[in-house]
Amino acid sequence: MKSRIRKFISRFADYRIDAFLVTNDINISYLTDYPSSDSWLLVLPNKAIYLTDFRYTEEIKKNIQGVSVFKVMRSLPETFSARFNKYKLKRIGFDERHVSVSLHKKIKKNFTKGTKLIAVNDVVEQLRQQKERWEIQRVKDCIRLNLEAFDYLKRILKPGISEKEILQRLDHYVKRKGASFSFDPIVASGPNSSMPHAKITDRKIRSNEIILVDMGIEMGGYKSDLTRMFFLGKIPPHVQKAFDAVKGAQQDAIKEIKAGIPASKIDQQARKYLRKNNLDKYFGHSLGHGVGLEIHEAPKISERSEDILREGMVITIEPGVYKAKKFGIRIEDMVLVTKKGCQVLSQ
Amino acid sequence: MKSRIRKFISRFADYRIDAFLVTNDINISYLTDYPSSDSWLLVLPNKAIYLTDFRYTEEIKKNIQGVSVFKVMRSLPETFSARFNKYKLKRIGFDERHVSVSLHKKIKKNFTKGTKLIAVNDVVEQLRQQKERWEIQRVKDCIRLNLEAFDYLKRILKPGISEKEILQRLDHYVKRKGASFSFDPIVASGPNSSMPHAKITDRKIRSNEIILVDMGIEMGGYKSDLTRMFFLGKIPPHVQKAFDAVKGAQQDAIKEIKAGIPASKIDQQARKYLRKNNLDKYFGHSLGHGVGLEIHEAPKISERSEDILREGMVITIEPGVYKAKKFGIRIEDMVLVTKKGCQVLSQ
Repeated sequence: MKSRIRKFISRFADYRIDAFLVTNDINISYLTDYPSSDSWLLVLPNKAIYLTDFRYTEEIKKNIQGVSVFKVMRSLPETFSARFNKYKLKRIGFDERHVSVSLHKKIKKNFTKGTKLIAVNDVVEQLRQQKERWEIQRVKDCIRLNLEAFDYLKRILKPGISEKEILQRLDHYVKRKGASFSFDPIVASGPNSSMPHAKITDRKIRSNEIILVDMGIEMGGYKSDLTRMFFLGKIPPHVQKAFDAVKGAQQDAIKEIKAGIPASKIDQQARKYLRKNNLDKYFGHSLGHGVGLEIHEAPKISERSEDILREGMVITIEPGVYKAKKFGIRIEDMVLVTKKGCQVLSQ
Repeated sequence: MKSRIRKFISRFADYRIDAFLVTNDINISYLTDYPSSDSWLLVLPNKAIYLTDFRYTEEIKKNIQGVSVFKVMRSLPETFSARFNKYKLKRIGFDERHVSVSLHKKIKKNFTKGTKLIAVNDVVEQLRQQKERWEIQRVKDCIRLNLEAFDYLKRILKPGISEKEILQRLDHYVKRKGASFSFDPIVASGPNSSMPHAKITDRKIRSNEIILVDMGIEMGGYKSDLTRMFFLGKIPPHVQKAFDAVKGAQQDAIKEIKAGIPASKIDQQARKYLRKNNLDKYFGHSLGHGVGLEIHEAPKISERSEDILREGMVITIEPGVYKAKKFGIRIEDMVLVTKKGCQVLSQ
């Protein structure tokens, strides 16, 4: 049995469950270390059962060791209920964020008396937070290509190029390297940069303008997420001032990072720095998030986060300042939390 | 108010609801005719309220007429519950497939007495099934480019090219035309074609082999989905026989299509044809599905479908025969259901 699955099972006692029905594809991919779609994984104390349909049965059998593969004939909940009553499970854990109200009804429909679904959230996500060494290496590979793409962009940037053209050039660059974007990049020029999630337009970039580029790479399932500001010519002093403040806030926050510190404290640190510069009211989103198999995953680095930083977490630190209709600045780096501090992976 | 929203409201009486909380992005995009992310739409009998956060507030206000935009400060369910109690709604409809067990709890948490969430599924999806004329035009645009990409592929196919290279060339072709794929294409050569959802590999294509290519285009939110078989050289007689049977099954099914016919009957028709050729046991998936804003949407064209074909539906008809580890054949076209018959859009 995979060591990740064993680790997962070791948590069952805390919740007094005798099985866990994993319904989220990414969580299944993590536990089995193989990409999953439209499948479920039922984990029992001594075995793991992979439920999938004809499309993937052959492939899963071939590629995942140590799980029993069960072919779904009609629908996942029907197969599950009909076949797994025989295990006489009493308390089956499930993550209520990954099961719709409708699916929940269907799963319970054919349960025999005495079987219950127990909401146990966030268990696999907790495991996923602290990356193994080879996972960190995969993320680093993504970051390296991400930075190379930014260097490439610097070379091709010139007045007259449009946001869409920049995207096409970046896309071509990334594909040629055998990778893909981990999300739709943001390329926001001039006043468009004031919208934190601006859509890409045909706007042509003029001299003395800023361009915000937020992009990520995906390779081998893992992801990166970085934002850089580009300046085409002279920077107006008030923009430079905002840039320096955002940079300072980021550095101040990064200094605080180490295992054992509450994530909310890191967010506060960045906000405090911006407040000293009277810019905190222009920073409307949280400071960062974990990155791994998903572009946004645990932990949350925000004012309200209850997460504690732990060794092996890979997080973004991305303070910003957005002045509506005028300009926006965001600087986003990726950081590995270590025992005694951290390592900025994207420098 | 948008006419689609008015149409939606006219269904409220059937379910005795005095509001509907739309939580699915695609359904919101459809009702407002503008792309939606991470937002909710509360539809009341006389107004529609768009709940979204700082990222999209500006943009939505600018681009959607006739809705009130409400900025979410913490989370969607918190804002919803805290602010909308004042409307004294009694029965709020929601689609239980688009609300997780966890979200359902959070929404109900702050309800005042007398307010209930009522499961009413599939209402927007039903509206989406029958396309308006301009929507059909958008789908047709996607299909045209899809067919052009297949023509392009025919020109570049030669022994020695790998599945991955084919994908790269297609990707480049499609991007240059300003479009994108509507899903990750399938390029399956030789024995790989026997897996209906094969992953793309580095396998190089040899002479006298078959290649199955299942790809779709997305432009302006709408999508296409087509599968073609390519033969590189001579076709072995047993493969030709399977191809002819699949083609025959498709033609037989298409002949039956018209408004008023149960979708299950169309599926049966294709299966009957394959049975006559002793190939029905190699056809393991359903015959087709609706296509529009989503690549798979209502109606279902399957044995168990309870959907009835209606004028303006756009569906795929995609029979297949898959002989494990040997070869697979699938032919997929897109068809517009008309009053008296149908129109094959992909010829």
